Amino acid sequence: MTILPRMSLRIDDVWQHYRNDLIEVEENIGKILTSQGGWIHEVGSYIFNSGGKRLRPLLAIIASKLAAERETDRPIKVLATAVELIHMASLLHDDVIDQADTRRGKQSARTIWRNKPTILIGDFLFAQGVSYVVDLKNHNINATFLEACRLMTKGEVLQLAHHRTIEGNEEQYLQIVQLKTASLISAICRLASMLSCSKPDQQEALAQFGLHAGMAYQIIDDALDYSADAGVFGKAVHQDLKRGEMTLPLLHLLSSCESHDREVVQNALHSGNPTEREVSDILALIRQYGSIEYCLKKAANYIEQGGRILASFPDSFHRDALMVLANYAISRKH
Amino acid sequence: MTILPRMSLRIDDVWQHYRNDLIEVEENIGKILTSQGGWIHEVGSYIFNSGGKRLRPLLAIIASKLAAERETDRPIKVLATAVELIHMASLLHDDVIDQADTRRGKQSARTIWRNKPTILIGDFLFAQGVSYVVDLKNHNINATFLEACRLMTKGEVLQLAHHRTIEGNEEQYLQIVQLKTASLISAICRLASMLSCSKPDQQEALAQFGLHAGMAYQIIDDALDYSADAGVFGKAVHQDLKRGEMTLPLLHLLSSCESHDREVVQNALHSGNPTEREVSDILALIRQYGSIEYCLKKAANYIEQGGRILASFPDSFHRDALMVLANYAISRKH
Repeated sequence: MTILPRMSLRIDDVWQHYRNDLIEVEENIGKILTSQGGWIHEVGSYIFNSGGKRLRPLLAIIASKLAAERETDRPIKVLATAVELIHMASLLHDDVIDQADTRRGKQSARTIWRNKPTILIGDFLFAQGVSYVVDLKNHNINATFLEACRLMTKGEVLQLAHHRTIEGNEEQYLQIVQLKTASLISAICRLASMLSCSKPDQQEALAQFGLHAGMAYQIIDDALDYSADAGVFGKAVHQDLKRGEMTLPLLHLLSSCESHDREVVQNALHSGNPTEREVSDILALIRQYGSIEYCLKKAANYIEQGGRILASFPDSFHRDALMVLANYAISRKH
Repeated sequence: MTILPRMSLRIDDVWQHYRNDLIEVEENIGKILTSQGGWIHEVGSYIFNSGGKRLRPLLAIIASKLAAERETDRPIKVLATAVELIHMASLLHDDVIDQADTRRGKQSARTIWRNKPTILIGDFLFAQGVSYVVDLKNHNINATFLEACRLMTKGEVLQLAHHRTIEGNEEQYLQIVQLKTASLISAICRLASMLSCSKPDQQEALAQFGLHAGMAYQIIDDALDYSADAGVFGKAVHQDLKRGEMTLPLLHLLSSCESHDREVVQNALHSGNPTEREVSDILALIRQYGSIEYCLKKAANYIEQGGRILASFPDSFHRDALMVLANYAISRKH
């Protein structure tokens, strides 16, 4: 059985409902950055105020309320703050690694402050995030959180190692997506559930829900790089293709196209820096072979599985909100 | 009262004495890297086998034995492994930030694998190091360790922010050195002491010893950039000057030289990329004003204070070994 959220509930309603909780998290981060001053404050505030959707803190807050056996207000805010700090750190490092010029429609931090401070402030925010979590003095929380951080960075390395490897397959891709994105989303759900003292099977269910939602989120992110409107997306499009990242749209195309079309992709990847013409040829093939639709279907399938898992929880506003959040992953345009 | 180590004891004897303990730490790291495979194994092994002196694990091992109230074999090896992992992570990020071509006489990792994997594998090793520490399930250990990591990264950011700021002063410099280097060295001593269940005043004494040794170590490192033989040093010399890093030799020169000499430095820093002629003029001024001797004296003073602190511990081989290690910081040529 899958569940359908109250039809009237929209993502903006969800944000509105948990707004006060999110404000508290934002205040925590503001205090941390202000107390550091200097570049940490400047760069940290810049990335924090660059239109982030606060999806990770929001997920932590809702998940903790879903099966709350006791009041977990402070610990959950600590967790939500820490995951946002880790997310900010990874955005800063991603900008350097991807040599990105824009993020969320604004100049990327690295174009303003250059690479060096961007890397180091990423390191600081990561250490600060972990520091915040260990302050909770809960060994199970520490282990789960650190394992997710470890897997996330491992996934990023693996992804890089597969650049331009035309022999890649979907299974490999899904493994990388699980490591680099879904493991942290899953961990957030599990940690929130642990902090609210829910039962082990509820913790596992929420972790599984997070895993599926995280898979869908990343698949859509990768599809948007091929299909989004750059103005709405807030960052340059077709970057994965230009960098030779073997994401699902390209992998689907390669596995389903004719051999002469395959050669077009192969040559573009091989050149290391595809021309605009090559990019537009590949985009046409992506449309022709329905690769974006394939990604959307795949992501929707993950969300559906996530919904089935959530169905084991009693009906509640929080359960609906989680489902709306998960659906947002596949309906968003940026 | 200061202490004099047994005159016959040399740094090589110290390494030899704790060799089996260090081998165990090296095996731990080897296992971690092997289990990851791929680039993490390759890049991690490269940096790990590039002639590092294992000073941090050695320090942890000796410090734990100095006031050991109980057998701490496994936890101390975990700590020693973790601090080496964090050190490896910081070396990888330093190479990218400093755009270094060589490290310890070999090509730097970033020149072989490029910047992107180097940054990400640094991130992985950092997460892995912290992960290893939280496995000890000791809240005080976690807090002390994470605080040191936080301060270290904060110090690195501060240092960068002071590049080419001719108004810098020694006090500011010492604060940065304490944050970026001495805080972790001090924490290693404190953590080793905590793990061996020594008394709070012993923990504090060892932490203070580490702080002083760490200050001396970094001051000498900064002096070597101006005074070392590149072949022996294992990395390019005069890099701090070229990058505009305001380390002690330059700060001493600026604070003691005539105004026309000051202008020479100012112009070189202002240009952003000093010519060979400017570099050699400044090196001549550094010699003329005795700035290297000033650094050596300053470092020796820290080591002497460290020795006074160690004198509160009963005479033992381990105490001598720590003192030899500290003295090595100021006598080394690389």
